Parts: sequence; C-alpha cells; structure tokens
Amino acid sequence: MNFIDGGVCAPKGYKANGVHCGIRKNKQKKDLALIFSEKKAAAAAIYTQNSVKGAPIIVTQKNLLIPYANAIICNSGNANTCNANGIEIAGGICALTAKELGILPSDVIIASTGVIGQPLYIEPFESGIPALAEGLSETGSDAAAEAIMTTDTVKKELAVSFTIGGKVCKIGGIAKGSGMIHPNMATMLVFLTTDTAISPIMLQKALKEDADGSFNMISIDKDTSTNDMVCILANGLAGNPAIETEGTEYIEFKKALCAVTQKLCKSIAKDGEGAAKLIECEVTNAGSLKDARAVAKSVISSNLVKSAMFGSDANWGRVLCAVGYSGVNVDTEKIDVSFCSSKGEIMVCNNGFGIEFSEQRAKEILLCDEIKIMINLNAGSDKATAWGCDLTYDYVKINGDYRT
Amino acid sequence: MNFIDGGVCAPKGYKANGVHCGIRKNKQKKDLALIFSEKKAAAAAIYTQNSVKGAPIIVTQKNLLIPYANAIICNSGNANTCNANGIEIAGGICALTAKELGILPSDVIIASTGVIGQPLYIEPFESGIPALAEGLSETGSDAAAEAIMTTDTVKKELAVSFTIGGKVCKIGGIAKGSGMIHPNMATMLVFLTTDTAISPIMLQKALKEDADGSFNMISIDKDTSTNDMVCILANGLAGNPAIETEGTEYIEFKKALCAVTQKLCKSIAKDGEGAAKLIECEVTNAGSLKDARAVAKSVISSNLVKSAMFGSDANWGRVLCAVGYSGVNVDTEKIDVSFCSSKGEIMVCNNGFGIEFSEQRAKEILLCDEIKIMINLNAGSDKATAWGCDLTYDYVKINGDYRT
Repeated sequence: MNFIDGGVCAPKGYKANGVHCGIRKNKQKKDLALIFSEKKAAAAAIYTQNSVKGAPIIVTQKNLLIPYANAIICNSGNANTCNANGIEIAGGICALTAKELGILPSDVIIASTGVIGQPLYIEPFESGIPALAEGLSETGSDAAAEAIMTTDTVKKELAVSFTIGGKVCKIGGIAKGSGMIHPNMATMLVFLTTDTAISPIMLQKALKEDADGSFNMISIDKDTSTNDMVCILANGLAGNPAIETEGTEYIEFKKALCAVTQKLCKSIAKDGEGAAKLIECEVTNAGSLKDARAVAKSVISSNLVKSAMFGSDANWGRVLCAVGYSGVNVDTEKIDVSFCSSKGEIMVCNNGFGIEFSEQRAKEILLCDEIKIMINLNAGSDKATAWGCDLTYDYVKINGDYRT
Repeated sequence: MNFIDGGVCAPKGYKANGVHCGIRKNKQKKDLALIFSEKKAAAAAIYTQNSVKGAPIIVTQKNLLIPYANAIICNSGNANTCNANGIEIAGGICALTAKELGILPSDVIIASTGVIGQPLYIEPFESGIPALAEGLSETGSDAAAEAIMTTDTVKKELAVSFTIGGKVCKIGGIAKGSGMIHPNMATMLVFLTTDTAISPIMLQKALKEDADGSFNMISIDKDTSTNDMVCILANGLAGNPAIETEGTEYIEFKKALCAVTQKLCKSIAKDGEGAAKLIECEVTNAGSLKDARAVAKSVISSNLVKSAMFGSDANWGRVLCAVGYSGVNVDTEKIDVSFCSSKGEIMVCNNGFGIEFSEQRAKEILLCDEIKIMINLNAGSDKATAWGCDLTYDYVKINGDYRT
C-alpha cells in the first residue's frame, strides 16, 4: 500500500472542483465543493448522533435510502441548520446539481458547514453550480478540499493505492475539521472516494467499523456538531472482483481505508481550532477494546490535560483523573503513564503512584508539537488510540467571536 | 428564612480556624482548615464518582461508617492522591487532630485539595495542628474558608437562619471551587454545619437529594475531580424535636439547605478558573426532571457556548447544538431560546428556528457578568437550572501552568 497524490480524484473516474459562489462575503474564500463520478457508485455514510440535525443530513439520509450516488456537493459558510426552509433549500441545491450533471436529485449527497441558524438562500447556488460543474476536473481535489474549509488552517486531502485480486485500487479523501468536534458514531465532514468494486452493504459495514476506531476517537472540544458526516463513494472502476462478503479482500480494503482515515484523523486533530499541538493518547493492555477506547477518549477530551499540554507541563495527575472518570472500572494501582515525543520518552507514573523524574527532561519532551500520552492499564491485552489537541488562548479567541 | 453572617460558625456549638502550616511555600497563604463541634454531630457526606479517589476520601468513607463526627480537617496545596503512602498520611492527620481535640480519630472528616501525585509529608501537620486547634473560635469561619482556597479568587461562606418546631435553627457553609469541577453525585469541597437536630439517615437523604439539584448541576470544565466531597455536621444544639421522618420539618430543613447550597453553587460557578461571567442555564417545560437537568448541564458544559458567552456573542446555534447532544430526545421544532441579564431579555430562537433580533441589543445583554440562558422545551412541565462560567484566556493560562 502506498500513499499517492490526487486526493478524491486519485481513484479512477472521479472529478472534483471548488469555487466561490457567494455564500461567504470574502470573495477570496471558496465556499462550494463538488465531487462527481460519472459511473453511479455504491454509497455509504454515517451521520452525527446529535438529535438536532442539519437539513443536509436529513436530505442525504433520504437520498441514500437507495445506497448509490454520483455526486457530493458541500458548501461552507452556513450550516443550513435550524432554518425554517432548510430542507427545501437543501433539496433545491440537489436539484440544481442534478440538472447540471444529468443525474437524479436523489443521486446527490449534500453537506453544509458553518454557522447554525443563519438563513441560507438559493441564489448563490443558482449562479455558482453551473460554473462549478463546468470546471470539474481530475485535478480538482485540491479546490474541493479548499472549499469545505471553515476555521481550518490547512487543507486535508490524501489517497492510497493498494491491490485487490490483482487489480490496483485506490481510496482518496478530503476532510474538514477544526471546531465543534467530538464525534459520536459519525463526525465532521469527510468525503472519501474509491474505485474498488464493493457492495453497498460491505461498504457501509467497512465505513462504520472503521469510524469507531478513527473519527469517533477524535475530540477537539467535546462538542458534537449538528452536521457531521462521513461518506464514501465506490464506483468499481478498478475492475476487481466485487467485494460482497468478509474475507481477504474485505480485510485488504479495510486496511487501506484505515490508512486514509487515521491520517485524516491526525490532520484534523492537529488542525483543531487554535491548536498548537497534536495530542495522541495510546491506551494499552486494557481489559477490552471498549475500555481502551473510553479511557483514551476521556484523556484526550480533558480540558485540564489539554491545558497542561499547551503549557508543556507534565501534570500526569490530570491524566489519571481523566482515566478515573472515564466510566471504565480501572485498578488505579496498576496504571503506568509515560509522555513521549520525537525528543524521547519519560515515565511519570508507575503502578498508579508518582515516580521521581526530571521535570526539565519532561519539559523538553512536551515542548514538541506532537505529543503521545501512553497509558498502560496492565489489565488485559486490548489497545486504542485517540487524537486531540491542546487547549489554547486561540481556541477561546476563535470561538469567542466566531460569527463576526 | 434569613441569610446571616458567621459561615460555618453561625449554627450553635461550632468553632473554626485556618492557618498556614507549611504545605504551601507561600507563607501568606493559609493551607490548613479545621471545623469543630464539641458535641458529637450526626454526619453525612457525598463523594466524587471518579474511580481514582484521593486518600482522604477513602479515609473519610471509613470513618463515617458510623455516621457521627466532631471535626472536619482540610488542607489545600496537595490533593494527597496517587501517593503510595497517602492513606497512612491521611490517617496520621486524623490521629493528630483527634489527639489535640480529645476525640477519636474516626470522628474526624478529612479532605485535601491541590496537585495530584505530589508526596505529602506529615511534618507540617505535626507542627501546625496544635496552633490550629488552639486558635479555634466562633469567628473562625472566615479563616477556614480562606485556608481551603486554591485558585479561587474569593472566599465562599454563608449561613441561613430558619425555624423548625418553634426553635431557631441555622445552617452554615464554606466551599472551594474553581477548577476540575464537573461533579457527578458529589462535588468539589463543601463543608456545611447545622445545629438542627436530625437523624443521620435523614441528614444523608437531605444532602443527597439536594446535591442532585445543586452541586451536581455545576460545571466549570467537565473534569470530575478525584477529591470532591460535600459533608454536613448536625449537632442538634438548636433543640428542635429531632427530624427522623419526611414531613413538614424535613421539608423546612431542605428548603434552608437548598438556600445555602444554591448560593454556594453560584459563587463557585462565578469564581470558576479564569471565569469572567456566571452563566446560568434554566430549562423549562421539559418532559421530566431528568431531561431538564441533562439539557441544562449539557449547555452549561459546552466549550463553544462558554466561548461565545466570553465573547458576548449571541450564537444561539451552539446552544441548540448542545441541547441536541444532551442525550435527551427533544423535538427541535418546539424549542425556544432567550438570553437574559440585568439589562433585559431577548428571544433569539423560536420553535427551533432563528428569528430576527437586534444583534446590538443582544450584545448589550450579554456584556453583563451574570447571564441566563433560557430554554423552553415546550414538552412538559419540569424544570432545572445549571450553573457554569465562560471559557476565557485565563482558564488556559491558569491550567497551562498550574504546578509552577
């Protein structure tokens, strides 16, 4: 398996584009993205668990009752959530897109991200979608990745190439992350494409299984958005024997999918709102996978741990505190904690008790911009990793004045 | 019922004191508090739900197997948690206190607050407890309230006077709050005294019932501490017929208790680490009390809502988002949201959709230092209030460098 260029256009048969259509006031900022597969693709998606759902989520769920699609359209700058005519507008955008591409409105996946509860008008879409479709190209992943950014500071796109049944297959993805990110089942906006031939049922299964260990293990701020969505299109153009059951090919596909999603997770966490550091929490030797995940996510979500990491402060007591309220029944006196970065590794807690360590050495390790918190529960053999970021002045600044 | 002066010494038969004994380096900062009732008092307590528990919690739980006590001792500057000899030290502190007061070690309630995982030595207690006991006085509540402060910026103490069976009864309390506060069942450190005659069983029942609507409804940072404790002593010196069942007298006692605890809650929330504003979330017309509490606590805990309040930004979409992930099954299209302060009230969301409102007027309201977020679920008749604070640069600053 190799990482390759091209993002969502790396797999065969996909084009993409991104334009400024006028949802945002700033004309320099693209605000509308489109991904298109001429060949109808198997489609799978997972959605936010927030019971307040954006209109695009509701429309996409309806469209994917038949799990095939040709296109993904996404705007930034407005979440189209809690708007009285939101569903009507989202339906209208699908219809405009379908008309331009010569497909059915129900073959369009739609997503929106931005402020909640601001009216969204159809006019920018009416004027923007023709040019957006016109400009679709096999090098357009970049423009699409740019158009879905909100407070993101870097574009998130990547692709891998791998082999199934002697055929070269590819998976590509773009994502937006940043704030209101504490996914539960689904998450933020992630659009994946593949040319692998795979049935809709196996595609949904793979996506769901993967998300539990990838996107659902990120937390930026414990806020689960109303508009989270991860979706994948699989148009089958790689020509591999279609994956219709679990087996070697399914496992190969999942491995490739995991390579893409875990890298996207890291880049989303590292680019969390205001973040200065990527924090990875690795929990080992847990009694169960569920326990490992709960502990890792609890630590990564703690405002106090996040603040300590911002200050490069080896305050491991806060790590233990977050383990303690994770809901997992842990034996405190078996827990080891180490901090690790490119500068080395230092153990700070052994069997639940503090040990002597060099504060200066710990500081050196924690001053890096990618930190790993390693927790050994010594209670079994399961492990999990969660990703987050530090809590900084800038998070507060960005979110104290987001709408202006 | 009247609010009166005197804190924990307002009820008959209580003395208190606070000194600097050397746990903290700064000699200006008191670090050891003592509350004493010469007459043995019925005692009740509730504790942190964190499965990593401080040694003082474990020792107090054991001491209160027989639910009577004479004294509460508490140090700040060190949590005595995750220390190999923590239980031995906590037991030693109880023994020193008991010796000085002429009581049994098992009649001492012990609590600690401060950094987790730093060794705690007995020497400062050996040298400090005699002077601490010597200086006990009926005007010592103030000194005790000061000695339990950590990053608190104001002392929290108050008392009420009320009548039961023709007898004047009193309840007094001191508290410390600030950081690592998202109580679950129990909370932070709150020490309450009363001269009301009440059985230990009814005292525990009253305390538990009250905490579910008071301390368990505060969140500063979603971090549930390892050392939270709320305890109450009731020495019966008011001379009322002892409360031994539910009934008018029990209801009167609970009303007075609630007056004390809700005020302490507000003062803890308002003095949250780095906080500039007290945020109160009032949920009305919920389908059940449980729903009302879950929604109120979810909103008050949202980093995004807290950041918006810091920025005086009427970003009500974040409020709806937090309602949505509260776990309560809400009908979005019935929800109304208003913001309120001493400057007035403004509705921003009606039936789940944004309504036109004056941003300038909203800003004026939100610039106050006590904000109420009012959420009408229009789904029933239950209501609840939760208390929190805004998320500020100072929270990050304080917690990025807490240990230094």
